[in-house]
Amino acid sequence: MKELSVLLKDIRKKKPLIHHITNQVTMNFLANGILAAGGSPMMALHYEEAEEAVMAADALVLNIGTVEPDSIKAMVLAGKKAKELGIPVILDPVGAGLSLLRKKAVEELVEQVSPDVICGNAAEISFLYGGDWGGKGVDGDQSENDDELALHAASKLGSVIVITGKKDAVSDGKECIAISGGHEILSYVTGTGCFSTSLIGLFMARSLETGLSCCQRAAGALTMLGICAERAKAVSAGPGSFQTALLDELYLLNPEDLNTAGRWS
Amino acid sequence: MKELSVLLKDIRKKKPLIHHITNQVTMNFLANGILAAGGSPMMALHYEEAEEAVMAADALVLNIGTVEPDSIKAMVLAGKKAKELGIPVILDPVGAGLSLLRKKAVEELVEQVSPDVICGNAAEISFLYGGDWGGKGVDGDQSENDDELALHAASKLGSVIVITGKKDAVSDGKECIAISGGHEILSYVTGTGCFSTSLIGLFMARSLETGLSCCQRAAGALTMLGICAERAKAVSAGPGSFQTALLDELYLLNPEDLNTAGRWS
Amino acid sequence: MKELSVLLKDIRKKKPLIHHITNQVTMNFLANGILAAGGSPMMALHYEEAEEAVMAADALVLNIGTVEPDSIKAMVLAGKKAKELGIPVILDPVGAGLSLLRKKAVEELVEQVSPDVICGNAAEISFLYGGDWGGKGVDGDQSENDDELALHAASKLGSVIVITGKKDAVSDGKECIAISGGHEILSYVTGTGCFSTSLIGLFMARSLETGLSCCQRAAGALTMLGICAERAKAVSAGPGSFQTALLDELYLLNPEDLNTAGRWS
Repeated sequence: MKELSVLLKDIRKKKPLIHHITNQVTMNFLANGILAAGGSPMMALHYEEAEEAVMAADALVLNIGTVEPDSIKAMVLAGKKAKELGIPVILDPVGAGLSLLRKKAVEELVEQVSPDVICGNAAEISFLYGGDWGGKGVDGDQSENDDELALHAASKLGSVIVITGKKDAVSDGKECIAISGGHEILSYVTGTGCFSTSLIGLFMARSLETGLSCCQRAAGALTMLGICAERAKAVSAGPGSFQTALLDELYLLNPEDLNTAGRWS
Repeated sequence: MKELSVLLKDIRKKKPLIHHITNQVTMNFLANGILAAGGSPMMALHYEEAEEAVMAADALVLNIGTVEPDSIKAMVLAGKKAKELGIPVILDPVGAGLSLLRKKAVEELVEQVSPDVICGNAAEISFLYGGDWGGKGVDGDQSENDDELALHAASKLGSVIVITGKKDAVSDGKECIAISGGHEILSYVTGTGCFSTSLIGLFMARSLETGLSCCQRAAGALTMLGICAERAKAVSAGPGSFQTALLDELYLLNPEDLNTAGRWS
Repeated sequence: MKELSVLLKDIRKKKPLIHHITNQVTMNFLANGILAAGGSPMMALHYEEAEEAVMAADALVLNIGTVEPDSIKAMVLAGKKAKELGIPVILDPVGAGLSLLRKKAVEELVEQVSPDVICGNAAEISFLYGGDWGGKGVDGDQSENDDELALHAASKLGSVIVITGKKDAVSDGKECIAISGGHEILSYVTGTGCFSTSLIGLFMARSLETGLSCCQRAAGALTMLGICAERAKAVSAGPGSFQTALLDELYLLNPEDLNTAGRWS
């Protein structure tokens, strides 16, 4: 898809500022991944600076992986300000059903912020859609019909829904894109799920010029990650060298190679 | 020791969920290390979700490396719930004698939680045993008679004691295992001590079937780290490539190679 | 410069303890970088232990990258105690003008602690000097006359000022050193700016014997980073392998190779 190559070229040229209020476990990897892909990451935490920090941003990524009451407050303030300014908001509801605290976090964020995109695994999106929590810790298993779940959840929640798994699914309630590719070694590196969300943030950045739909932009980010993961796998011995090579491949990817042929359905 | 190979095979099959309330410096490395070794890591921080989060876990790792009053509260709540449910609790008393805050943290955790295993360097275990703090920052020097210290501290504290150093020592107050191996370059990568504790958590996971004693399981984890460190050292130029290679070797280790011959005494 | 080789040998021998109150994004990288270069890192966060923790340190590094009201309190307490004990304090005013919270943090730290060294990019130092904030997020652009800015800011603030950029500038208000070298791929790895500050902390450690001026010690740290970055670039494919190689090169650097010829002006 030629428009995706143009989008990636524009990312590399404009280096959009992707602001994160995110978990403590993977923030370093997210920052390095955004830099490697061509963006400019920013992380801030405290609600006192939440509104000011988001003002310079081209997209806002919210991730509840190690959420606390204070960070919920920061996320709501930043999210509302972002929406007011037309800055896209992308939510990763990590472990959504694990605790009342996380349930409260996602409910407040969905109701008060209404994120443009919500990106999670099947267990997390199922929980947001129907309230059932079948997850184990923060890593959810793949369900058989993610396409359908994405479609229904998007209709109900009014956000573009992304479900990551062996095969990813993206829907806005009408359009639905299934993305294949990547490699299972991704599941041996912490934060690759979180990074999917961050990379979608980068592809959604407001400063970019494109005629692509939201679904296509999100699917484009997942395609980039899939291609780079396959290339990194080919030159690595295990998850340590894979993570290193993944950052290299994100940096090295030629925009012309961001090809969806045989990947989207 | 054949039972250790069986245990590692069981880890790879069941992917036990190792929950952490741990420090901010090394949490990414711990999560990647647990994934590479075959487990499933989880990190949560806040006391509001401490009891819920631990319920899905197969082991709980507590680490006071960047402790705060709120995280002590979370650790005590999670630790008590874990003990109630029969989930093994492993404590790493990082820099135990450095401040009153850390002293308070370890005292509360020892008294109220009574961890199954306490894993630290000689300075930290000495402090827990006798109240003296000879540590420099958070890195303690090796003492000459760690075997004896482990034995006495285990008797006094009622936990399995692990002392990491050039030679590791494990004791439950009766049995005592000294483990040799590893490589000094481990001390040039932050979090390898914390990771010893996490890996012990993985080997102690409640979901695993084994006839091994607690001491043997803990010693098995340290043996795995030692073997993988030696292999990683052989293919790396310095601490950067060593850390990367260590994650690869944890992932690649054939359970049959988890051999204690010439390592335990 | 022969004295720099002697200084690095002394670092490797004494392994000075560099205490950090720093941001959550890059703390793992800073700890690994300090270890690789030959020092001993320590991180603690909470104000309750701020004064005790700093007492064992040879230098104190303060970084406001993910600052919160509680960490400002910890930084002020630790900073004042450090100055009282003659322990050098190095401040990195990350994103200084981004929010009122950060403005308050740097004002309190400059007024109440009076850091020995302040190390930032041109946007951050301009803000401290004149109150104007032209930064984009936390990454500032290079200005044309950093030498002059460093000189004036040092006079006004009474600290040694370090401005990092394509060419670094160090001044105490009289002496001024411009340092060339390094590689632009440094800007594709998060925390390399923070690490400049940490490495300056290591070169400033109170336990080291040297006749070098503060400016020369700071410039020496930046020279070490520049040389190691160039060597790492030569053996890496992208930012992932570069970061790994950089840690290796910091560890491998022969003190005799810490050569300023053609680098300082």
